[in-house]
Amino acid sequence: MRWNKKHIISIRDFSREEIDFVLKKSRDMEKKLKLGKTSSLMKDKILANLFFEPSTRTRMSFEAAMKKLGGVTIGFDYPGISSEVKGETIVDTVKIAAGYADVIVIRHPIEGSARLASENVDVPVINGGDGSNQHPTQTLLDLYTIKKEFKRIDGLNICVIGDLKYGRTVHSLTNALENYNVNLCFISPWELRMPRRMVKGLEAKGIKVRETTKLNIKNFDVIYVTRIQKERFPDPQEYERVKDAYILNMDAIEGIKNEAIIMHPLPRVTEISTDIDNTKYAHYFEQARNGIPVRMTLLCLVCGVKF
Amino acid sequence: MRWNKKHIISIRDFSREEIDFVLKKSRDMEKKLKLGKTSSLMKDKILANLFFEPSTRTRMSFEAAMKKLGGVTIGFDYPGISSEVKGETIVDTVKIAAGYADVIVIRHPIEGSARLASENVDVPVINGGDGSNQHPTQTLLDLYTIKKEFKRIDGLNICVIGDLKYGRTVHSLTNALENYNVNLCFISPWELRMPRRMVKGLEAKGIKVRETTKLNIKNFDVIYVTRIQKERFPDPQEYERVKDAYILNMDAIEGIKNEAIIMHPLPRVTEISTDIDNTKYAHYFEQARNGIPVRMTLLCLVCGVKF
Amino acid sequence: MRWNKKHIISIRDFSREEIDFVLKKSRDMEKKLKLGKTSSLMKDKILANLFFEPSTRTRMSFEAAMKKLGGVTIGFDYPGISSEVKGETIVDTVKIAAGYADVIVIRHPIEGSARLASENVDVPVINGGDGSNQHPTQTLLDLYTIKKEFKRIDGLNICVIGDLKYGRTVHSLTNALENYNVNLCFISPWELRMPRRMVKGLEAKGIKVRETTKLNIKNFDVIYVTRIQKERFPDPQEYERVKDAYILNMDAIEGIKNEAIIMHPLPRVTEISTDIDNTKYAHYFEQARNGIPVRMTLLCLVCGVKF
Repeated sequence: MRWNKKHIISIRDFSREEIDFVLKKSRDMEKKLKLGKTSSLMKDKILANLFFEPSTRTRMSFEAAMKKLGGVTIGFDYPGISSEVKGETIVDTVKIAAGYADVIVIRHPIEGSARLASENVDVPVINGGDGSNQHPTQTLLDLYTIKKEFKRIDGLNICVIGDLKYGRTVHSLTNALENYNVNLCFISPWELRMPRRMVKGLEAKGIKVRETTKLNIKNFDVIYVTRIQKERFPDPQEYERVKDAYILNMDAIEGIKNEAIIMHPLPRVTEISTDIDNTKYAHYFEQARNGIPVRMTLLCLVCGVKF
Repeated sequence: MRWNKKHIISIRDFSREEIDFVLKKSRDMEKKLKLGKTSSLMKDKILANLFFEPSTRTRMSFEAAMKKLGGVTIGFDYPGISSEVKGETIVDTVKIAAGYADVIVIRHPIEGSARLASENVDVPVINGGDGSNQHPTQTLLDLYTIKKEFKRIDGLNICVIGDLKYGRTVHSLTNALENYNVNLCFISPWELRMPRRMVKGLEAKGIKVRETTKLNIKNFDVIYVTRIQKERFPDPQEYERVKDAYILNMDAIEGIKNEAIIMHPLPRVTEISTDIDNTKYAHYFEQARNGIPVRMTLLCLVCGVKF
Repeated sequence: MRWNKKHIISIRDFSREEIDFVLKKSRDMEKKLKLGKTSSLMKDKILANLFFEPSTRTRMSFEAAMKKLGGVTIGFDYPGISSEVKGETIVDTVKIAAGYADVIVIRHPIEGSARLASENVDVPVINGGDGSNQHPTQTLLDLYTIKKEFKRIDGLNICVIGDLKYGRTVHSLTNALENYNVNLCFISPWELRMPRRMVKGLEAKGIKVRETTKLNIKNFDVIYVTRIQKERFPDPQEYERVKDAYILNMDAIEGIKNEAIIMHPLPRVTEISTDIDNTKYAHYFEQARNGIPVRMTLLCLVCGVKF
């Protein structure tokens, strides 16, 4: 396949062929990385990390990825530090950064900001998360983690747990899974269930979808957990009533499939108890680590660097 | 010419010969940069960026410049992060940084802080902006942008628009232009006109100066725009009355010279409308980009690195 | 000696043999650094600087040290930027960083956080200061500074001045000095004198200890000054009464030993007057600079890099 995406803005821009290509190339990259053969791929290239809102994991992951490719990074990681405080528009800030750098990663609280940025500069732009909209590199590392474990995505039984109404990660992942022949189960409080349009979109593609409020996870290959935020509930008492029902602890995982993997985009608060961390099912820290080869791959692809 | 400036503190320290030398070397540097021949000039050298107040552009520009020279950077970019919160003096912070680094860039809200720093350490110090006083690297990239376009500075008709009373950039630029045979026009609200001592300084050097409150920009080669800040007006109603009179939009630029260039130190708020961005006159983003070769040149010159 | 410490958590974990080994290797490293022979020791390695509270000196020092070894750094330097704001535990943040980096430096306001971190990851962890508990790399550079000057630690007369009750640096240093045959004098206001258990610990090791409230520093080889913070006094009037009694100025140093050195962990506020800076006794800026070879050494030792 010949890669022709200059920007990484939304997982919805990706065909199945393109997703599969990224996953395959990421596997190649991970092998090269282990052999210590990546450190001159982006030599003398500069990545500008424009983080208009803080994000430990995504920013550090892109920095590490760029540096493992032999490149360097500039940027800012706090809204107050940027010129935004002086009233500059995102477009101006991005245009200026494009004059300094070879590739830009942008994270911004406003939906659509990454696409807007990409339309105004000549250098490649990667969306590091735009508000409650998209986080495509997270989704690609999620898929990479699943494929690394099961050697396939088709045919898997996948459940997604937590805040399915507002969760950006969950929406991006669901968009991507439309391309695969999976069985999906959405587990959430009624108030936070998956938006109707997303469920209809999946069904239109022939994906089997089940929705439930019960945390029954015995039959799944992939158990994808997300955080439920108190502030999402109009009625705090309602939150208190449901919160404990979605906590993954040793009791909750009793009887799950032997080969099941538990994933989480992190940060995790209390929704997965820490004693799960030491079980073979826990894959969330490996999932975070998988961000490195996936982001290294994306940086090379958009910059036209062959490997 | 043999370079003998160890520190870059104020444009007023520069002779015309020294300014011209920096502009010529910056052109050499830009050529070398395009040929990929700069990345070992500052190898194993460390730049400490001491930003006691935030500045996206200046800081990222110095970081990119240093990294394109093969050097590395350390530092801080937010007052709260520095030891200042614990009551340490600037001099102590700078002395400590001098023990870690080969060259220092300092930005501080207090006038004279960069000179004070330079007098207390053995490593070169570059002023990245000290309060409302000086910003010499901005002025040098402004002049570089003008010279790159017109191949000369002498003989040009230059107008400067906006807040001429408080604008640091404008004062530095005016100081530098004293060395050239230019025609200057200052366009501003009466309340924000250029300080008398600066106008008198120019006239003493034989520079033709005109001052006006009218935005008539038809006859200029260089149209240098700056921001007018509401908080500069004692009377907010007065601000409301004048603000729209100094906005550069498509109407305002009708009939300007074919070869005219519009400049702005950025960040821009509303004083240049965004539809100007796509005209051939707009040079402010290229101006920001020109900061790279100019700052690369200054870093090499003060560190005694030949190129 | 074969080095077998994977983590640097507390100076109390060090035997005298281990401390002496670090000091000897730091001297070797400083020589190598001056010859320009260190810049490939940590090539392609990543240091994650996890600073949950700000610290100009320690963070910049570790960054410079890592970069002088040819390595790169990632990380954060402000609590608000980290995922902590989203409720993530230290352990989770550190585990994620361990997936990106080869070695971690952590600074956190909570005592014991560095040890907790080290127990949960596979990569080496260095304590960059945990609350009022330990700051082992500061102590090692303090000892390195003393040994560099006097070629020995045994037999020296050392006084420690200031806040001896709460001072983290002073406690770490005292712990380390238990391993040497020194004469110690503690000079402080009564309210801020050294905790009894520390004095008893020293005496149990046969160290001669004297305590006084008088700033009499005539007979000491090493004069180690620390800051007295107003907020440590329950009664502000009491602070006003004693504060000036512990300020080192030209009068106070009259008659001190010819070879005496004055040290301070910095930042310094008013406790050493700036005219002392230009005397031969002032060693605090060199002390800060000594952090580079010492931290370079520790980074190499914990990463198993030979030099």
